[in-house]
Amino acid sequence: MIRVLLVHDTELMRSALTALLDREEDIEVVAESWESAPDRARAQRPHVCVVDVDCPGASRLPSRPVDRDCALLVLATTARPGSLRRAAEAKALGFVDKDAQPLQLPRAIRLMATGRRYVDGTLALDLLRAATAPLTPRELGVLSLAAKGASAPEIARSLRLSIGTVRNYMCAITRKTGARNRIDAIRISRDAGWV
Amino acid sequence: MIRVLLVHDTELMRSALTALLDREEDIEVVAESWESAPDRARAQRPHVCVVDVDCPGASRLPSRPVDRDCALLVLATTARPGSLRRAAEAKALGFVDKDAQPLQLPRAIRLMATGRRYVDGTLALDLLRAATAPLTPRELGVLSLAAKGASAPEIARSLRLSIGTVRNYMCAITRKTGARNRIDAIRISRDAGWV
Repeated sequence: MIRVLLVHDTELMRSALTALLDREEDIEVVAESWESAPDRARAQRPHVCVVDVDCPGASRLPSRPVDRDCALLVLATTARPGSLRRAAEAKALGFVDKDAQPLQLPRAIRLMATGRRYVDGTLALDLLRAATAPLTPRELGVLSLAAKGASAPEIARSLRLSIGTVRNYMCAITRKTGARNRIDAIRISRDAGWV
Repeated sequence: MIRVLLVHDTELMRSALTALLDREEDIEVVAESWESAPDRARAQRPHVCVVDVDCPGASRLPSRPVDRDCALLVLATTARPGSLRRAAEAKALGFVDKDAQPLQLPRAIRLMATGRRYVDGTLALDLLRAATAPLTPRELGVLSLAAKGASAPEIARSLRLSIGTVRNYMCAITRKTGARNRIDAIRISRDAGWV
């Protein structure tokens, strides 16, 4: 029996994905919120942990909701390389496209339970984009504060930079993302899952 | 038999929600994308149409994916009154909280199939907020262009306003949303589902 820990933000989606996987006789699912997943993982010792990388709670992903022995499989959509980057940094070994045939999910779970990897072909190009992130970690730090509404002086104080340096970072971010202005840069980066 | 048309952006979530509802003997589900839903609705004549109001495709909601005879039930999360507003404008009669017990969904479907309404108590306050939208339709128009990265002159041209008027709208929007600046106003409005 393959033990699966499924993590999703909302109760309804947890139940729905559980109903889907309950059809497979060799898979046993427990679904949890991001808050309760770590405790459950310690008790259940799952073989595979399945998380939806687009839900807001997935921003916690780099710190892993589960222990090291469990293979991490992420559910993802195309055109969001930033989300895939977080998943890769959390050492995900499986990447299932939410628009693939639903049978891919149990298939990928079985592969991963035997120590193999799985990447949907439709996500391969995004994984390449994720590997060559357009922004440096420092630029991402500036951008994520700006996206929360912080002004240049506030960002400067928060990151211990000069205001001019923050402005230079914002210009570099706008140029690298091909944006028309700061607001556009934030929109592009959010749509791609970078912030 | 209650015929349900389920509309969601991704194949996996359509299949998962179908698996959940397939457990109910009196409910028959067909799941479709936003593109194919109108055709399917004409062929299937569903009693209830279930849509996830937080998925990107739901921005088409005011034009209704289905015909007038079908009761619209939306799956929603708290703290996004803008999404509920779109649902209300599309004449939704059912509002199910995605964090409620999953059995609420078939219960709500049954109520609506007999012509009744259903609102989860947890969404009631958000519906009140949705009814008293903080922004006017004109302000929402300005804001949604700004959120896409348009500059004040571009917004002015697009909406046939003077640049000064656009700036006045942006100031009103920032004040009404309690934001620190324009970027913050866009973030707050997006999180609430207004744009």
